[in-house]
Amino acid sequence: MNSSNCKLPDTVDFSADKRALRIIDQTKLPGEMALLELTEPDEIYEAIKSLRVRGAPAIGVAAAIGLYCAALRFGAGGTSDFIAKLRETADYLNSSRPTAVNLSWALREMTGSVDPARTVDENLAPLRKKAEEIRAADIAACRAIGEWGLTLLRDGCGVLTHCNAGQLATTKYGTALAPIHVERERGMNFRVFCDETRPLLQGARLSAYELAADGVDTTVICDNMTSQVMKNGWIDAVIVGADRIAANGDTANKIGTSGVAVLAKHYGIPFYVAAPYSTVDLSAATGDEITIEQRDPREVSELWYSSRMTPCGAGIYNPAFDVTEAGLITAFITDKGKNIFG
Amino acid sequence: MNSSNCKLPDTVDFSADKRALRIIDQTKLPGEMALLELTEPDEIYEAIKSLRVRGAPAIGVAAAIGLYCAALRFGAGGTSDFIAKLRETADYLNSSRPTAVNLSWALREMTGSVDPARTVDENLAPLRKKAEEIRAADIAACRAIGEWGLTLLRDGCGVLTHCNAGQLATTKYGTALAPIHVERERGMNFRVFCDETRPLLQGARLSAYELAADGVDTTVICDNMTSQVMKNGWIDAVIVGADRIAANGDTANKIGTSGVAVLAKHYGIPFYVAAPYSTVDLSAATGDEITIEQRDPREVSELWYSSRMTPCGAGIYNPAFDVTEAGLITAFITDKGKNIFG
Repeated sequence: MNSSNCKLPDTVDFSADKRALRIIDQTKLPGEMALLELTEPDEIYEAIKSLRVRGAPAIGVAAAIGLYCAALRFGAGGTSDFIAKLRETADYLNSSRPTAVNLSWALREMTGSVDPARTVDENLAPLRKKAEEIRAADIAACRAIGEWGLTLLRDGCGVLTHCNAGQLATTKYGTALAPIHVERERGMNFRVFCDETRPLLQGARLSAYELAADGVDTTVICDNMTSQVMKNGWIDAVIVGADRIAANGDTANKIGTSGVAVLAKHYGIPFYVAAPYSTVDLSAATGDEITIEQRDPREVSELWYSSRMTPCGAGIYNPAFDVTEAGLITAFITDKGKNIFG
Repeated sequence: MNSSNCKLPDTVDFSADKRALRIIDQTKLPGEMALLELTEPDEIYEAIKSLRVRGAPAIGVAAAIGLYCAALRFGAGGTSDFIAKLRETADYLNSSRPTAVNLSWALREMTGSVDPARTVDENLAPLRKKAEEIRAADIAACRAIGEWGLTLLRDGCGVLTHCNAGQLATTKYGTALAPIHVERERGMNFRVFCDETRPLLQGARLSAYELAADGVDTTVICDNMTSQVMKNGWIDAVIVGADRIAANGDTANKIGTSGVAVLAKHYGIPFYVAAPYSTVDLSAATGDEITIEQRDPREVSELWYSSRMTPCGAGIYNPAFDVTEAGLITAFITDKGKNIFG
């Protein structure tokens, strides 16, 4: 089940000449590995909006690099014009996906790094440095998650993951998949099972793609096959990402995560949540305070909006996320360490 | 979420002139309700092989009626010619799906009902009578399952089902869905959630279709949403069908059934298996003795064989069924009564 060991480029980066944002176009996966180089605010906005780049950390890094590259082309004008255009462009990019916390955070970091007392040219250097720092911090956090995660796994074990909390959702390494990618650098081998993750198939299209590209023994299963692979004894650990972790440890993540956690408990398999520590939201006491986004029913009824899969008379329930009770989670793995909830 | 209350025709029947087999073409659902009238052995073979008619009970009835209608056209010849052609046609139809027990049983019943001492015309009447009996027995068994099942449910409750063990898998009523259809005749109302049942989407395409057509409040969910709807408190009971029930109660059914059973236990929801008593296989002591069919990986990797959903480097695991441990099953509902395993 291995592909050739062809490593992926980083999900988000500067172009070789450092004058454009370079991203993997994820809408083309798994069929085609297409790289895009973007410099215009309209292009960058569209790339985030239409999920060419997705995953909260990756979006933040893309917006930071994209804002710098757009600023290189603001043209003639004084510093106050430059700063006004920078803020206007940042506001525009921020409106591409209003709910991604990393997006607004990264853009605020960027606009806060310019100084009205300096020339335009003197402002470009700290802007670029800030974008490089945001990118480096994302890689470092994911790498740390990978190292902490590896202390919970042994070589050769079987791992199940849900959705894509991998390299393609960050700059590099990913969160849930960081231990898998880090172990590949050391020549270790895990066997990874990817739930396909209906309705948008991020597990089948993205997690399986990046794992196979990294030479990992990768198997795709439909979401309803998880129980059977656990019963077969093929899974030693489950690792998933998180969208938000409440103060008590209740964890919101892609729809289906809570079901996997219940199955893991039934079959006696440890269930790990891997995420940057910044995912913990102390303002939410429990998962009950986390609102679950309801998405377009056509994601379920029409496969890729082509062929209708459900009868017109039937309703559709299509939540994007669910909440996994803290009691079902064996440990949390973050960039600050593991078992943060003791 | 209701459609208009338009009842479906029986899944399998004689045509109005009683000279052809009439079936619903299930490959056209949920887009189109197309009825086919078939008389030629080649047409009947193709309809079973390509799943125009599917579900073990429905296939058995279709083969019985189909064999009678084909026999009406055997042409001139004596009784021994007639019986030879009948057996040859039965063998041919039996090879369309060799694993369906009901198919070979129904064809044996048919070929066993002719008498070499009678004329061809004298043999046609008992042949037709036998096909009518097989059809009537299927309806009666499903009706009995529906009545027994209703004693476990109350008006207005929420029911979750997996795959299609409904009218479309039998002549009428179905097995798991028999209580739902029977209660509609009495003006009761359940709210039914259908797991879409990847990879072939029998829940989304077939169960949701027949329930909505019967005026049932029907909602389709992806398989990974089951945990969330249970947590929401929307499900009072789970009812599924069975492909084979071992002597200890371990139950083989569509892949994903065991996961639903684990979730039901976790959330304290009763989990019922509804099937004709003939589904019990006393020759299998436990579920470990039931072989699980592995199916074509393309069912997972290519949606309707059009657009590739998984990377070439990743393997695919695609079991058709799983086994649910007897301990997870609250009760069995059969045509002979409920709680057969005490």
